[in-house]
Amino acid sequence: MNHVPSNGASAYHRTEPHYIAELTKVGRGTPMGELLRRYWHPIGLTSDAGSTPRQIRALGEDLILFRDGSGRAGLVHPRCAHRGASLYYGRVEDRGIRCCYHGWLFDVEGRCLEQPCEPNAGASTCGRIRQPYYPVEERYGLIFAYMGPPEKKPVLPRFDVLETLEPGEFIEADDSSIGSGGPAIVPCNWLQHFENVMDPFHVPILHGSFSGNQFNARMAIMPKVTFENTTRGIRSIQLRDVETGVHRRITEAVLPTIRAVASPRAEKDGPCSLLGWVLPIDDTSFRIYSAGRVLEKGSLAKIRSHFNGKLWHELTEEEHQRFPGDYEAQVSQGEISFHSEEHLGFSDRGIGLLRRMLKQQVQAVANGQDPIGVAFDAAGELVKLDAGTSIQPRGE
Amino acid sequence: MNHVPSNGASAYHRTEPHYIAELTKVGRGTPMGELLRRYWHPIGLTSDAGSTPRQIRALGEDLILFRDGSGRAGLVHPRCAHRGASLYYGRVEDRGIRCCYHGWLFDVEGRCLEQPCEPNAGASTCGRIRQPYYPVEERYGLIFAYMGPPEKKPVLPRFDVLETLEPGEFIEADDSSIGSGGPAIVPCNWLQHFENVMDPFHVPILHGSFSGNQFNARMAIMPKVTFENTTRGIRSIQLRDVETGVHRRITEAVLPTIRAVASPRAEKDGPCSLLGWVLPIDDTSFRIYSAGRVLEKGSLAKIRSHFNGKLWHELTEEEHQRFPGDYEAQVSQGEISFHSEEHLGFSDRGIGLLRRMLKQQVQAVANGQDPIGVAFDAAGELVKLDAGTSIQPRGE
Amino acid sequence: MNHVPSNGASAYHRTEPHYIAELTKVGRGTPMGELLRRYWHPIGLTSDAGSTPRQIRALGEDLILFRDGSGRAGLVHPRCAHRGASLYYGRVEDRGIRCCYHGWLFDVEGRCLEQPCEPNAGASTCGRIRQPYYPVEERYGLIFAYMGPPEKKPVLPRFDVLETLEPGEFIEADDSSIGSGGPAIVPCNWLQHFENVMDPFHVPILHGSFSGNQFNARMAIMPKVTFENTTRGIRSIQLRDVETGVHRRITEAVLPTIRAVASPRAEKDGPCSLLGWVLPIDDTSFRIYSAGRVLEKGSLAKIRSHFNGKLWHELTEEEHQRFPGDYEAQVSQGEISFHSEEHLGFSDRGIGLLRRMLKQQVQAVANGQDPIGVAFDAAGELVKLDAGTSIQPRGE
Repeated sequence: MNHVPSNGASAYHRTEPHYIAELTKVGRGTPMGELLRRYWHPIGLTSDAGSTPRQIRALGEDLILFRDGSGRAGLVHPRCAHRGASLYYGRVEDRGIRCCYHGWLFDVEGRCLEQPCEPNAGASTCGRIRQPYYPVEERYGLIFAYMGPPEKKPVLPRFDVLETLEPGEFIEADDSSIGSGGPAIVPCNWLQHFENVMDPFHVPILHGSFSGNQFNARMAIMPKVTFENTTRGIRSIQLRDVETGVHRRITEAVLPTIRAVASPRAEKDGPCSLLGWVLPIDDTSFRIYSAGRVLEKGSLAKIRSHFNGKLWHELTEEEHQRFPGDYEAQVSQGEISFHSEEHLGFSDRGIGLLRRMLKQQVQAVANGQDPIGVAFDAAGELVKLDAGTSIQPRGE
Repeated sequence: MNHVPSNGASAYHRTEPHYIAELTKVGRGTPMGELLRRYWHPIGLTSDAGSTPRQIRALGEDLILFRDGSGRAGLVHPRCAHRGASLYYGRVEDRGIRCCYHGWLFDVEGRCLEQPCEPNAGASTCGRIRQPYYPVEERYGLIFAYMGPPEKKPVLPRFDVLETLEPGEFIEADDSSIGSGGPAIVPCNWLQHFENVMDPFHVPILHGSFSGNQFNARMAIMPKVTFENTTRGIRSIQLRDVETGVHRRITEAVLPTIRAVASPRAEKDGPCSLLGWVLPIDDTSFRIYSAGRVLEKGSLAKIRSHFNGKLWHELTEEEHQRFPGDYEAQVSQGEISFHSEEHLGFSDRGIGLLRRMLKQQVQAVANGQDPIGVAFDAAGELVKLDAGTSIQPRGE
Repeated sequence: MNHVPSNGASAYHRTEPHYIAELTKVGRGTPMGELLRRYWHPIGLTSDAGSTPRQIRALGEDLILFRDGSGRAGLVHPRCAHRGASLYYGRVEDRGIRCCYHGWLFDVEGRCLEQPCEPNAGASTCGRIRQPYYPVEERYGLIFAYMGPPEKKPVLPRFDVLETLEPGEFIEADDSSIGSGGPAIVPCNWLQHFENVMDPFHVPILHGSFSGNQFNARMAIMPKVTFENTTRGIRSIQLRDVETGVHRRITEAVLPTIRAVASPRAEKDGPCSLLGWVLPIDDTSFRIYSAGRVLEKGSLAKIRSHFNGKLWHELTEEEHQRFPGDYEAQVSQGEISFHSEEHLGFSDRGIGLLRRMLKQQVQAVANGQDPIGVAFDAAGELVKLDAGTSIQPRGE
């Protein structure tokens, strides 16, 4: 905690604020943008890719998602390589997507297959044209894209908590930003949310006192917390004395954007059943794609936060003020929070660890190394997580 | 067509895009802005000038249009020369327009006639004040303004196709952007539309296949096309084999902004009956003023495009995607299309010719010469056009 | 009045316009911003400070206003000193305002009293934290803030016209921008309004002719006007011949932002009963807080301007054009009027005097001196004004 001299108490003496661009900005060519581009990111639900082209925005880039007649999903630059008309107005066909303006046809990897206004329908010229595209893969009901340098493309990871299903369980996907505390698209920088995953102290205050107790009774207790680096990010271990022993909760931030957070409402203990991927839409907005083990269709949608008995979008402005949640706490920091104005304390050491690890990974990429957690062979595909809750005997 | 190397196929390798500012930007002092300012542009219908001041935006400049009590139209800078209150709130009087704030009165050429708060109502001072203005002339139901250097003001041209009327015909004017495929004000750079006039190949694709056949059956046939320079711009000659012979269609782009395009719906052959002036409102929007020979009032309004049986503004978002037209193809290129991302082909040689000619005219103005098509004496006033359709005997 | 040469009559020859930043911009560190920050400004009604935090914008700064449980008003920087969550979502308590995110508690002067997530609730650390704040004082139903350097804080002035009450009179406050001619928040630079106070000539034109006669009959007469510097600003003396003698009206602009303008509708003569403080919200918007002596609650709200028998917000666009008032005349000058395009005349010498005095005060502050009208001891607290109206015997 830095000292604020008493003659600086007046707001008149505030210095010009700034944020840490290295940790927040996501565009191509920025330090964090290049780190993020070494991983796969979900950019839609499986059902989002179909015969109607769909606009996607991810890491500050506008793209068009579609699925050709043979079932392959494609993710391409919107502006047709010919004259720039958007493929949003393209027609999806068996072999790809066709631009409305002059009919150039591209497959899911951007190869130009036809140019109907050119001599011989472009038979001798279309091979020279390539529509910019990104590779995609589908898993857990989500479409993942790899937006980085082709030669650095890692395997798309599998996660043990989503691979080991109990009888009757299946994987459900969701794009409503579960855990954001608000609407599907959240108008602030992604890091303001992702840091919150390594901040277990706000839970008894924001969720246990301010907004009434949003979760179960035990979550309102101030926990004992330790933070640790893992092979894939940071974890926090939160201990709470409860009737039956010590309640132990492990929460993980898996780099660069994955939340492994056991539901704070769950009464049953065990491994975390839900993962969330924080997708930076651009520098000043994000959304969360989730996938979880469920027994019934529609289970994920029921996890959404309630405030004063209402959903976020049902609140009046005054109720937002009286019953604030993660959305209000994070979005009100501004489009990109000014880190120069912060005063981090002992309870913020998880934030500090996470920022330090992110900076190290940014530096690793700048140095030509691979960042934490990427794997290039199928053997490295399965990621084992510790996230979840359990009851330990007291005194252990 | 430039070669895209295969290692550039990923969208990750896109280079920073840019557009040709020299051809697109229309502000005072820009290369194209100065070329455009050597010609007359329509800025309103005759009926737009009246006793209620009207806001006009043309070539990136905001102006006020009115008509004084003696019937003279005036086009003036909005900010009163005195203290800057807008003449939009002025009162139109017999001799001009009077500012609401302190009552300065200006005639249609900006001369200050009264300053009621000054000694002797400004009798000895008002002569030193001039409200900035542009000269206007009215023709074909349109008000044309000359916004260039006064000493370079050409004659306002007459066009043969609008001067020679058949019995019963008269000239009708329209400001709804006929030919834009959308609403009256189109939110993209004017050149994206004007180039389309020299692109006959998109017709069978965009209008003949994508959106169903918007025009008559023959327009869905891919034509044989030649392009030629004229003394006033570029023309394309489109030949289609039809039952009765060879259908010959000539379309002209008359510099800097005039479309001479025979209606693609017309069943009757003959000279083009409709001219359109593409007015750049500013760098990122335009509208089209039209004047045409008609037999019935309201005929021009009927030419508007239909998609799936509906007018543009009646379409749902999904219908815009399924039945795209010129609006979608041109506006989706972006506010100003990135020319660096284009790959022009053999079918785009009309685009190439037009850009080349525009660049030559920009250069001519920069060199102190007069650009193509301007005339300074009444003898040069009449412009003869070739645009129109005809049936030629086969084999000619 | 500068000469406009006739070859400059065309709008084509306009030069790039500019405004006097030194007189208009209000941000911290700008010349005028620093002058304004040497005075107290109203930032709310007394009733605006309560148990629900309220967003305030003043001089380009965003702030949060509240009133703690012991009745003290507080005005603080929105972003919590800890992690930047806005205190707009804070909870007002007996001792101050508590951030929703991690519960830091601040008093009305920004002292941190508790940090519940820190060891021992922050007992040994919270003393090092200070939330940026500004001092406030309440008077005349208004909350005044001092946003300048703490060591330069003057006494909050009292005004004789609001201190001497007739039997039955009391002070009423208003935040609806009485005198702006429009809505409470006016979207242009504050100086465009404040200058108007030293412009009595527009009254017979704008209010007496254009919009019908908005005031009483005598205000439609063009007055004889003199302008004079005072010890606190500028005053204008306006003389009009009326039946009973010479009607004498004194209007004052008290630096930096106070209007002392006798109601132009009042039939009774005497000292001005209403003061208005023009608060620059930021560079391009302002509002007016007023306080006045009244006999009945709600009297101030009745002073609002009428046009064609309607309130401003009830007018159609065409009625705004036909019945313009101060709002239209001032806002239509643009967000910040371009002074380079003005042509000031003899009737504008009040504007000239006011600008000159403002520039002198800006210079005084830059030189380390105190600007006009500030006082640092209670003895200098009472400000005596001349504003008001009276009837003088003719020939005096």
